[in-house]
Amino acid sequence: MSGWTRAALEALDSADPLARFRDMFQLREGLVYLDGNSLGALPRRTSARLAQTVTEEWGEGLITSWLGADWMAAPRRVGDKIARLLGAEPGEVIACDSTSINLFKAMTAALSLRPDRSVILSEAGNFPTDLYMMQGIAAFSGGRVRALAVPGEAVEDRLGKDIAVLLLTQVHYKTGAVRDMAEVTRRAHAAGALVVWDLSHSAGAIPVDLNGADVDFAVGCGYKFLNGGPGAPAYIFAAQRHQTAAVPVLSGWFGHAAPFAFEDGYRPADGIERFLCGTPPVLGLTALECGVDLMAEADMAAVRAKSLQLGRVFMDLMDSHCGSFGFTLVSPREDGRRGSHVSYAHPRGYGIMQALKEHGVIGDFRDPDVLRFGLTPLTLRHVDMLEAVLRIREVCETKAWGDPRWAVRAAVT
Amino acid sequence: MSGWTRAALEALDSADPLARFRDMFQLREGLVYLDGNSLGALPRRTSARLAQTVTEEWGEGLITSWLGADWMAAPRRVGDKIARLLGAEPGEVIACDSTSINLFKAMTAALSLRPDRSVILSEAGNFPTDLYMMQGIAAFSGGRVRALAVPGEAVEDRLGKDIAVLLLTQVHYKTGAVRDMAEVTRRAHAAGALVVWDLSHSAGAIPVDLNGADVDFAVGCGYKFLNGGPGAPAYIFAAQRHQTAAVPVLSGWFGHAAPFAFEDGYRPADGIERFLCGTPPVLGLTALECGVDLMAEADMAAVRAKSLQLGRVFMDLMDSHCGSFGFTLVSPREDGRRGSHVSYAHPRGYGIMQALKEHGVIGDFRDPDVLRFGLTPLTLRHVDMLEAVLRIREVCETKAWGDPRWAVRAAVT
Repeated sequence: MSGWTRAALEALDSADPLARFRDMFQLREGLVYLDGNSLGALPRRTSARLAQTVTEEWGEGLITSWLGADWMAAPRRVGDKIARLLGAEPGEVIACDSTSINLFKAMTAALSLRPDRSVILSEAGNFPTDLYMMQGIAAFSGGRVRALAVPGEAVEDRLGKDIAVLLLTQVHYKTGAVRDMAEVTRRAHAAGALVVWDLSHSAGAIPVDLNGADVDFAVGCGYKFLNGGPGAPAYIFAAQRHQTAAVPVLSGWFGHAAPFAFEDGYRPADGIERFLCGTPPVLGLTALECGVDLMAEADMAAVRAKSLQLGRVFMDLMDSHCGSFGFTLVSPREDGRRGSHVSYAHPRGYGIMQALKEHGVIGDFRDPDVLRFGLTPLTLRHVDMLEAVLRIREVCETKAWGDPRWAVRAAVT
Repeated sequence: MSGWTRAALEALDSADPLARFRDMFQLREGLVYLDGNSLGALPRRTSARLAQTVTEEWGEGLITSWLGADWMAAPRRVGDKIARLLGAEPGEVIACDSTSINLFKAMTAALSLRPDRSVILSEAGNFPTDLYMMQGIAAFSGGRVRALAVPGEAVEDRLGKDIAVLLLTQVHYKTGAVRDMAEVTRRAHAAGALVVWDLSHSAGAIPVDLNGADVDFAVGCGYKFLNGGPGAPAYIFAAQRHQTAAVPVLSGWFGHAAPFAFEDGYRPADGIERFLCGTPPVLGLTALECGVDLMAEADMAAVRAKSLQLGRVFMDLMDSHCGSFGFTLVSPREDGRRGSHVSYAHPRGYGIMQALKEHGVIGDFRDPDVLRFGLTPLTLRHVDMLEAVLRIREVCETKAWGDPRWAVRAAVT
């Protein structure tokens, strides 16, 4: 048996410096939500703020709110707030578009700075959209650019003179494994390549120090640990030193030096604004800003410490309560190598996750057999780890995973 | 003097079959809002629906709402609704990203179908983002693609064997002039080119018949006449016949044949879904759907008839009340050639528009000297045309345009 009694966990919750954040979210009583790494919970403040944006700013202010409510400045304002979570300076991050679109921007920007090199390198099994966006660039390049994905452990050795851009994800979406951003970036630079880091599972989950690691470009997602809402705008980081030289391919009017001069020729804006493209999504940015503001109130060191402890507790309890049910830990057990979710493989994984939802535990499932459990320090209590594991045990003991409703997997999981 | 007395206009309003729609919008008492062509007004239903999406679907349903509240289907569902306004079939339109991004998708898709041709042709003075996105494609192509903008009247004569794609806007953003979509498309096809139409000032403003005109690709904006909210998602149309052959460059995971199979290689979805890229912006799509639903309740022939009549009334009143103040009509006077906004040039245009805002009339200003007045049939009464023109006259008579506050133009207009 694990040493984690309910009383011990309740004691940890009583002493938790982040405990006050839980009440800032709308959370259904009795639900253990372990999927904040896929869609962050709703901050209570978001509902009221978004209603204000809709009825006052849009409804009353109408077109004048672009200046009057400073919608124009939202991508940069939210970007500057995200920058603080990433070890970046104001003016290095802007909130806009989707992660996929921002991957395209970052990779083409990096390519424009390495015109004598042709390969974008990544790891096989990276998050699919990262790989797909690489492949789209290569296909459109007419042979100039090649997209190459090699096994994760072979990436660094493949850094040769042909590599223009190394695209990696800091925290792996499936395993939660963390890469050493500073060391990998150093090696890429030593080989003459630029780096693009995908921070989708990093921002708000682990401390990130982009400038400390001398990163060139990065992108990330607003709807996971930043609690920005479903399909929230994403963000892009471009190191100050690259901003003038990197010419945008997605050269839309909001990235122009003077969008409202309505010139016929594209002239990129001076700073990070050149990575904007179309008209900013005001409603999405409003919700994202609420989530980012909330995250900014938390001490990131405390977030990381609690995240790791939640992970340790969860794994310990899985060992002691569910050790006989055939789960295989997929995530690194070692603290320094693990992000803010813990994954297990199980041949009945899909059915287990479906059954768990009916038992009030929401995680998610990733093909072919991985159960992911997201551990978001702002919404979860230590005692929730026990609650979740007890329900996992119940699902396994009762074989609730075998319900015929789950014989065929839904297309969306 | 114009024959339009207040009584005559009130009589038109009494007989207006679209009059009932005005109450469906939140509109400030006394304001004459003539900028629905830039940001459509707020439909009352949107506030409640969006609150439901936030607190129930996101807040309660959390990640399960991707299926449970059918967020997954929103881009296609909203696209199918927009298709009905465009003379397109279900499965030919999808709501996503920004107009700028969708321009990139449409142009690169068209280019992939004309590999032996190299030029994207458009007109000088087209909406800037259209031109900028062309230029971005050309810059990235490494010389394979050329972006060419010629004077509007010279476009059709330039359709030679080198033209791969003709990109035009159906209703010109500045003048409101309408191009003959069917005839221009016929000429482009005769020359072996494909067409991309920008419908930003068309959808919800004038009848559009994409399939009747044999159009290849089209894009448009959700926040103007569709009343989708600030920075609403845009849409893209790809004719059924092109969907299999056109390979997306912006090949994000939501455009994959099986997004949740998490494969390493991109395989485009079979239909219009291949033009999706990143995770759909659920909040924006929710608001857009409200606006589109509302527009779909209106008879498009009635919308067009009222729009033209509002234009005639407005121009007549400008002639009779403001004829001596130096306005020059920029828009076509002829009904068949005019969209749903009327523009005037005036050397004091910027100051006039600023002063008008303080007199309760909101239109907008486009460099260097153009005042635009958007005439949205669902929110405006005929009598509002008189009210607006009286206030324009007052601004001119009192020279309120000369206020020193407006000596320097704001960067955003």
